[in-house]
Amino acid sequence: MKSEILRLLKENDTYISGQQLCEQFHVSRTAVWKVIEQLKREGYQIEAVRNKGYRLIDSPDVMSRAEIESLMKTAWAGKNVIYYDEIDSTNNRAKEYGEKGSPHGMLFVADKQVAGKGRRGRSWESPAGSSIYMTILLHPEILPTKAPQLTLVMAMAVADGIQKMTGLETKIKWPNDIVVNGKKICGILTEMSTEIDYINYVVIGVGVNVNQETFPAEIQSTATSLKIELGETVRRSGLIAAVMASFEQYYEVFMKTEDLSGLRDRYNSMLVNLDQEVKVLEPGHEYEAHALGINRTGELIVRTPDGEEKEIYAGEVSVRGVYGYV
Amino acid sequence: MKSEILRLLKENDTYISGQQLCEQFHVSRTAVWKVIEQLKREGYQIEAVRNKGYRLIDSPDVMSRAEIESLMKTAWAGKNVIYYDEIDSTNNRAKEYGEKGSPHGMLFVADKQVAGKGRRGRSWESPAGSSIYMTILLHPEILPTKAPQLTLVMAMAVADGIQKMTGLETKIKWPNDIVVNGKKICGILTEMSTEIDYINYVVIGVGVNVNQETFPAEIQSTATSLKIELGETVRRSGLIAAVMASFEQYYEVFMKTEDLSGLRDRYNSMLVNLDQEVKVLEPGHEYEAHALGINRTGELIVRTPDGEEKEIYAGEVSVRGVYGYV
Repeated sequence: MKSEILRLLKENDTYISGQQLCEQFHVSRTAVWKVIEQLKREGYQIEAVRNKGYRLIDSPDVMSRAEIESLMKTAWAGKNVIYYDEIDSTNNRAKEYGEKGSPHGMLFVADKQVAGKGRRGRSWESPAGSSIYMTILLHPEILPTKAPQLTLVMAMAVADGIQKMTGLETKIKWPNDIVVNGKKICGILTEMSTEIDYINYVVIGVGVNVNQETFPAEIQSTATSLKIELGETVRRSGLIAAVMASFEQYYEVFMKTEDLSGLRDRYNSMLVNLDQEVKVLEPGHEYEAHALGINRTGELIVRTPDGEEKEIYAGEVSVRGVYGYV
Repeated sequence: MKSEILRLLKENDTYISGQQLCEQFHVSRTAVWKVIEQLKREGYQIEAVRNKGYRLIDSPDVMSRAEIESLMKTAWAGKNVIYYDEIDSTNNRAKEYGEKGSPHGMLFVADKQVAGKGRRGRSWESPAGSSIYMTILLHPEILPTKAPQLTLVMAMAVADGIQKMTGLETKIKWPNDIVVNGKKICGILTEMSTEIDYINYVVIGVGVNVNQETFPAEIQSTATSLKIELGETVRRSGLIAAVMASFEQYYEVFMKTEDLSGLRDRYNSMLVNLDQEVKVLEPGHEYEAHALGINRTGELIVRTPDGEEKEIYAGEVSVRGVYGYV
């Protein structure tokens, strides 16, 4: 009921009477009053006026299941949220639920991770109060070899969500880093459990730097946050809902063809590497090439200096822009 | 110490003195006597002769960590055994250990599974006392897309192990069923946890019908056991060790090229489908073709009736022999 009352307050600029809330949720006035008091304690500014009712004046950067769910506009992606103030890692938790067969679209969100995961078992710094750590659990009925493309789908959704929430120009560094003004703002970690030709589940973890005000000196030139770029605090729950809304749409386009055919043009329009020189770092062999965009399965098409076109698989190389970090 | 004493007894046809065992393991005669008594209770026939020592006369079909480890001749594959009289599923257990980062080559063996797993979440009947249920945990440093080939490596190892232990002609039905006299004797379930371009771990589960004397009527025409085919009981622990010995060798050949180049000829020599007509069942389209063997990545090469050669990926089709089940 808390999520629903919150959603009603958010959707109405005017007052909602206590009587209306009682009737809608079949509860007593005391029950409604208790929920309102709880919301106030969490930081919501709610005005209560006799004979008029309740009105939401301001929402803080609250992270909670009720807050996130009250903002969610999707049919299945993130419709069911499990929220933790503190957790080992949202990917680990999502994998546990995946093993148990929990449903497609379930979203795991934490304010703080004590064992946040980066790629290849590296750790991912995950302090409280400033970032988004979230992981979506998926059961796509596709071959395991196609699942890596879902990472690019999520990258598009994150870039979209940020752009909608903040207006900042948000780009993708192939294959799945999100950059704002040339600095990294988000990392994505996709993991899956599969049989040979069958996906048990996929989890896609997303870490976004939202309200950090500074970064350690050693990464200041390569990392940034939305608050640093925008100059103001961004509400994390709203951004989560915006990312899920985009993800759901893009995912459904992806599943129609089980590849990126329908998303490729949009992806390439977000690609910071597009029409840029990139350095391809193959094991024991490094060369510069001109990036032409992704193909329908997410490989990066590059033109080598001698005019040959090659398709680069994410697992086989790193791509570094020759004009800087991204 | 129990595994080691058992190993010594097995490796010697003559008597081993209690004194020798005491000195070798730095324990008292009473400690040695206790281990011998324990082994007798487990079913080992051990003769004890004054002034001569102990001699192993006969080993029953015992499944235990000590028995399996006493037979293991590998450097890493199955060198470390975790044995359960009863477990949910050896694959599930291996995955749990995999999540915790347990080492490459660890082997999980059970006498009985209460939630045995077949492909795509189906169950796998796993009664006690007659079958092998085992799962090896691996951390191969290869791209996830190459890991499915390890299923074929295991199929070769199982076929080899059975042939060595029993002399029965053992064949592989592409990609990874093991058949004796045209009937299925073993199923393999490979699962993995991966990132996009990095394998967290792979588990390969193997279920072998060893000492069953009958099968339910509905599968009698398609399933068999080693005992039915051979007419005598087969020692499961010995077969486990034989399979691990072959697996370790084949695995190391595989890792040199990260594909089946070095194993392809051997695999094709075991392939029951080789030079046979097969039915290729594509979704919505079924045709007969002539099987020419696997390529270096494990796809089945077939020649269609109009002379075209096609490579069939395991995930995309079923192959059924037109001359019967296999």
